[in-house]
Amino acid sequence: MRDNDIRAGEKAIDWPDATDAGLIFIGRIRTPWTSRLDCPRQGQPDGPLCRIDIFEPWHEALQGIEGFARIEVLYWLHLSRRDLILQSPRKDGTTRGAFALRSPLRPNPIGTSLVTLAGVEDGALLVRGLDCFDGTPLIDIKPDRCPFTPLALQVPGDAEASEKDR
Amino acid sequence: MRDNDIRAGEKAIDWPDATDAGLIFIGRIRTPWTSRLDCPRQGQPDGPLCRIDIFEPWHEALQGIEGFARIEVLYWLHLSRRDLILQSPRKDGTTRGAFALRSPLRPNPIGTSLVTLAGVEDGALLVRGLDCFDGTPLIDIKPDRCPFTPLALQVPGDAEASEKDR
Repeated sequence: MRDNDIRAGEKAIDWPDATDAGLIFIGRIRTPWTSRLDCPRQGQPDGPLCRIDIFEPWHEALQGIEGFARIEVLYWLHLSRRDLILQSPRKDGTTRGAFALRSPLRPNPIGTSLVTLAGVEDGALLVRGLDCFDGTPLIDIKPDRCPFTPLALQVPGDAEASEKDR
Repeated sequence: MRDNDIRAGEKAIDWPDATDAGLIFIGRIRTPWTSRLDCPRQGQPDGPLCRIDIFEPWHEALQGIEGFARIEVLYWLHLSRRDLILQSPRKDGTTRGAFALRSPLRPNPIGTSLVTLAGVEDGALLVRGLDCFDGTPLIDIKPDRCPFTPLALQVPGDAEASEKDR
């Protein structure tokens, strides 16, 4: 099956001629995977070491990243079509909506992975837990969420967020 | 302090005149928060009920979402400046890189939250666990990662991802 074929039950929309915000690629991800046949569907904490190269002028924005064991990585799934709202990943005609799948085919094809930080070099990170193709454009890096030791001071909304319905 | 002031130790870059990919807003998030003073820094599972309105033509892409207890939400932090590579969130002059913070100020200002799904309506989701302003543009919804019961069939890369360095 070719990449752009549509399987039984799948549905594509006419892609709207609009762009609401612009992304800038801040780096590039190096992984062992170059085809759909070998790329894992979801990264694993003990997966192979991958390298995230950060472009300038963003090297300085890594300052302090070495203090985190787990980071979140956002990347642009540059080979994915964006118009398939119903998909049949099992090829059996059973369809699900794009938002009920972690498929790379989405209106805004952004992948997110939680990875373990294995090393920091000048302008690069070494991590485990990715699941994207070699050469995937990087769009963001953040520390993983930290429910118990927030670095920032409390604001009124922090307490408010614990209340039930309002 | 005004929003666009730079604190001691912070550093802005000259914003590059480039756009590498275009996002489309697929919905809008309704929350109780309308200012920085009351918006929580991080969503909490028992936070207030928030509503995610999906635009057409993406209503059908929600099909099957009701089967998930936790979903991941990606949104565009539309009020955030993008050029601050060093930031001083504590206002004390101690700086960290943008990628070592979950600050909304980032080169590509995309927020991610893991939320609990409290209800599904026609073209809308009710969730708890968000931390963004009322009116924030939506860019993606995915089921939360599911390490034990992947819906998709295994591919060779799934096993490969468990091996150590290659």
